Amino acid sequence: MRCFGDLVYLYDTTLRDGTQGEGVSLTVEDKLKITKKLDELGVHYIEGGWPGSNPKDLEFFQRIQEEPLKQAKISAFGSTRRVGTRTEDDTNIKALLEAETPVVAIFGKSWDFHVTTALKTTLQENINMIWDSVHFFKEQGREVIYDAEHFFDGYKANPAYALKTLKAASKAGADWIVLCDTNGGTLPQEIEQVLTVLRKEITTPLGIHAHNDGELAVANSLMAVRCGARQVQGTVNGFGERCGNANICSVIPNLQLKMEFRSLDSDSLRQLTEVSRYVSEIANMTPLSSQPFVGSSAFTHKGGIHVNAILKDPCTYEHMAPELVGNKRRVLVSELAGASNISFKAREFGLDILKDSESTRRLSSEIKELEYRGYQFEGAEASLELLLRRSMGQSGEFFNLESLKILVEKRPDNGGGVEIINSEATIKLRVGDQVMHTAAEGEGPVNAVDNALRKALEGFYPALKEMHLVDYKVRVLDGKDGTGAKVRVLIESADSTETWSTVGVSENIIEASWQALTDSMNYFLMRRQ
Amino acid sequence: MRCFGDLVYLYDTTLRDGTQGEGVSLTVEDKLKITKKLDELGVHYIEGGWPGSNPKDLEFFQRIQEEPLKQAKISAFGSTRRVGTRTEDDTNIKALLEAETPVVAIFGKSWDFHVTTALKTTLQENINMIWDSVHFFKEQGREVIYDAEHFFDGYKANPAYALKTLKAASKAGADWIVLCDTNGGTLPQEIEQVLTVLRKEITTPLGIHAHNDGELAVANSLMAVRCGARQVQGTVNGFGERCGNANICSVIPNLQLKMEFRSLDSDSLRQLTEVSRYVSEIANMTPLSSQPFVGSSAFTHKGGIHVNAILKDPCTYEHMAPELVGNKRRVLVSELAGASNISFKAREFGLDILKDSESTRRLSSEIKELEYRGYQFEGAEASLELLLRRSMGQSGEFFNLESLKILVEKRPDNGGGVEIINSEATIKLRVGDQVMHTAAEGEGPVNAVDNALRKALEGFYPALKEMHLVDYKVRVLDGKDGTGAKVRVLIESADSTETWSTVGVSENIIEASWQALTDSMNYFLMRRQ
Repeated sequence: MRCFGDLVYLYDTTLRDGTQGEGVSLTVEDKLKITKKLDELGVHYIEGGWPGSNPKDLEFFQRIQEEPLKQAKISAFGSTRRVGTRTEDDTNIKALLEAETPVVAIFGKSWDFHVTTALKTTLQENINMIWDSVHFFKEQGREVIYDAEHFFDGYKANPAYALKTLKAASKAGADWIVLCDTNGGTLPQEIEQVLTVLRKEITTPLGIHAHNDGELAVANSLMAVRCGARQVQGTVNGFGERCGNANICSVIPNLQLKMEFRSLDSDSLRQLTEVSRYVSEIANMTPLSSQPFVGSSAFTHKGGIHVNAILKDPCTYEHMAPELVGNKRRVLVSELAGASNISFKAREFGLDILKDSESTRRLSSEIKELEYRGYQFEGAEASLELLLRRSMGQSGEFFNLESLKILVEKRPDNGGGVEIINSEATIKLRVGDQVMHTAAEGEGPVNAVDNALRKALEGFYPALKEMHLVDYKVRVLDGKDGTGAKVRVLIESADSTETWSTVGVSENIIEASWQALTDSMNYFLMRRQ
Repeated sequence: MRCFGDLVYLYDTTLRDGTQGEGVSLTVEDKLKITKKLDELGVHYIEGGWPGSNPKDLEFFQRIQEEPLKQAKISAFGSTRRVGTRTEDDTNIKALLEAETPVVAIFGKSWDFHVTTALKTTLQENINMIWDSVHFFKEQGREVIYDAEHFFDGYKANPAYALKTLKAASKAGADWIVLCDTNGGTLPQEIEQVLTVLRKEITTPLGIHAHNDGELAVANSLMAVRCGARQVQGTVNGFGERCGNANICSVIPNLQLKMEFRSLDSDSLRQLTEVSRYVSEIANMTPLSSQPFVGSSAFTHKGGIHVNAILKDPCTYEHMAPELVGNKRRVLVSELAGASNISFKAREFGLDILKDSESTRRLSSEIKELEYRGYQFEGAEASLELLLRRSMGQSGEFFNLESLKILVEKRPDNGGGVEIINSEATIKLRVGDQVMHTAAEGEGPVNAVDNALRKALEGFYPALKEMHLVDYKVRVLDGKDGTGAKVRVLIESADSTETWSTVGVSENIIEASWQALTDSMNYFLMRRQ
């Protein structure tokens, strides 16, 4: 494992190609936040958007100029000039110029079929468009990255022409030529074949831009680097259209920990997991737990035998130390797991539970029974900790419910006025020997319950003001029962230093939410005790 | 694209290694269903479980004997005999024998470190354990697959010893030797190097069992096949511990459509998408929309330029025809999309909307406004269709709400009796000039509303009995607002022939559910009209 080999430049396009992914949508604020995060991580180039395509991207380029960045260069993306226009008059080229970025990425056609079918022009005009556009931005003093769209498909169809387009970009002064597998169907061995030829023909530094349609984007990127490419374009978590782009969260550790290249310094590499989750959070995409290197399951052990071996030596079932990418080892409690897992978790919680004790066996079967009813503790470790503590006689109950009523009213104004929707919760509960009976409204029934509960409790426990809900998930456990199906609610909560997750299960969404909500508060109060 | 090259055998371990994945849990019924599905698909081997590890797996092996299968062979998984036991007395070996499968997969240690650290025995005893166990099952007339656990790590650490373990299995008569990258950190070039050596040393047919910890499991499997392996082990959707196993839904089409191998016949290949989604459904795992080949986004286009080009020729932005794997092309309506997408969708719905009309522009900005407020039509095409139809003056409203009240009561019995939770909805609505005022209870507030709504409507529209809810999802749009945050509800509904999805957005979960629920019913009634 050498970490000081050739430098591979990282070109992140989460903000541009990443937003082409289904369900991914970023505001200008979101884009600024992600840019700063990627800059801190040490990414070399950050592609901010396509200024010619929408006003949001133009606003980003204006505002990013006021942000002090540590090292990343901002790049603006756009196409070559259009068929038959003068470069300096082309609206897309003008928008690129106005973005005032040090780096410009221009994409052009490599595939003769696209030139004639999509652009509907001659092969020679396409060559002129590439030369003119690259040359124009070099004259303007910009660093120019030429993105050869559909290069591998184009090369298969007409290698001489595809090569000619690259030579035009090279002669016009492009600083980089990036080979794009736009449709994402290329195999690693094809990348190898093409790069081996290109290295003899092109002296401009090469880059790779892979898509994941064959589940090979990471392999293709690594292969290109092995064959001489020194820039990798990709996105955080592999966001991107269709099956996504090359996932830089996998490309980076492979290059750096398993191959002889460097791209980030080792300290930055430890931020990778955090960056991955931060970007998912901002983009409002559920993080993929099984994501390599950075996923919450990436170093998670479930089977009893594996857990046993891991306790002896983590190398037995881990390909690397999770800390190197800022991730951590987890052990799951589930029906597959034996007493080893429970005692491992207990130790994690700072509890002293013997592996072979009667109470561990009782707990193990209680957990199996709850899982059978739909609970899932894999994603709700705070609820599990409460369960373990309660089994040891620690109460973890800071209040008792006497009664709860929720009324929701909806009265549409069919005359066109404002519709009325009210949610109100009435709660009666006991803390020690004091009874509190109160009511509150809310944005919906769960919020009304939350508000009433807080109103009733905050007099006793003022610290509750410091915790808040971060995420709220509902999963129907058996869709066949329709709206009457059992649901599992997972709540993630946070205070200023910690996040924790709790679970509730019921046919009634309010009851399931109540369980997860009260577990969350009890957990918080227990930690503060 | 040749489809009649060398046959590569598929060995599916979804039921065994797949269930080691976080969140994956299958009942015996589930396992039987998946087995039949994989048999229909044409998978050659199906690993049913580890009979020595839990009673559920043993039950599976008993029940599968009564199921008529078309062609798949059932395999039972287990370890070599334990240190110091006689093979025929070993409990694990006995359980494997009792499973009465035609195929037995036995895993043994290749890595000297594991032999001394995890097994705590001598290198020679491990060799004996492998030989004895393979020999035992060959004597019993079984087909024996020897899984060389940690082979690549073992080979790196001590190549001579790793090779010796394989030779023991080979000499004992194993039908297959499968090289396992158990920890999942091996690179494709390492697979190539090792396989190139092995092919000269081992005559037994070779297989590959890859894990995805480096996001390279598919690439590693394909590389092994290129280097002579003729069996690929993997799981549907890549389920499996940590980052999962090699995803057979990607391995198969790559082998078959892009390389010179065959594994399924072409008709079966068209079932791949359905099999992938069926297994996700049974396992209660949310399908990954960006999954290569079979994901719902795999052939989905969002950016305006791409949509424009796709309309001219799908080859422009698709690496293959989606129909080959039973998937289909989709075009999304989103803020990135222009009038092209709306007119494409309209055409899909059988509506005649002109791309350049005033109404299309109005619709486009209405959709942008709704998406800004949190609606997402990418996953709710029935709601989009209703919106489009309404914009064309087709009403799509089969009833009008006058008022709705929901009361939920929770009264814990602190004395230890049964807790009382009641949910009741009162509804008043109008169909034409008739008013219906009724009430119903439910398992929770949304179910109560659903029941009351159906009770009020079924007299007017008896067909409603035929539709049911398949999935119900809630997503908090901005977690910072806690339980008062805006939520998006996505409902998937189905009748006997079709499924459709609808969306609702509100701070009130009941209101959001109401929108999605009534859209779903209105859509159904419109289709039946």
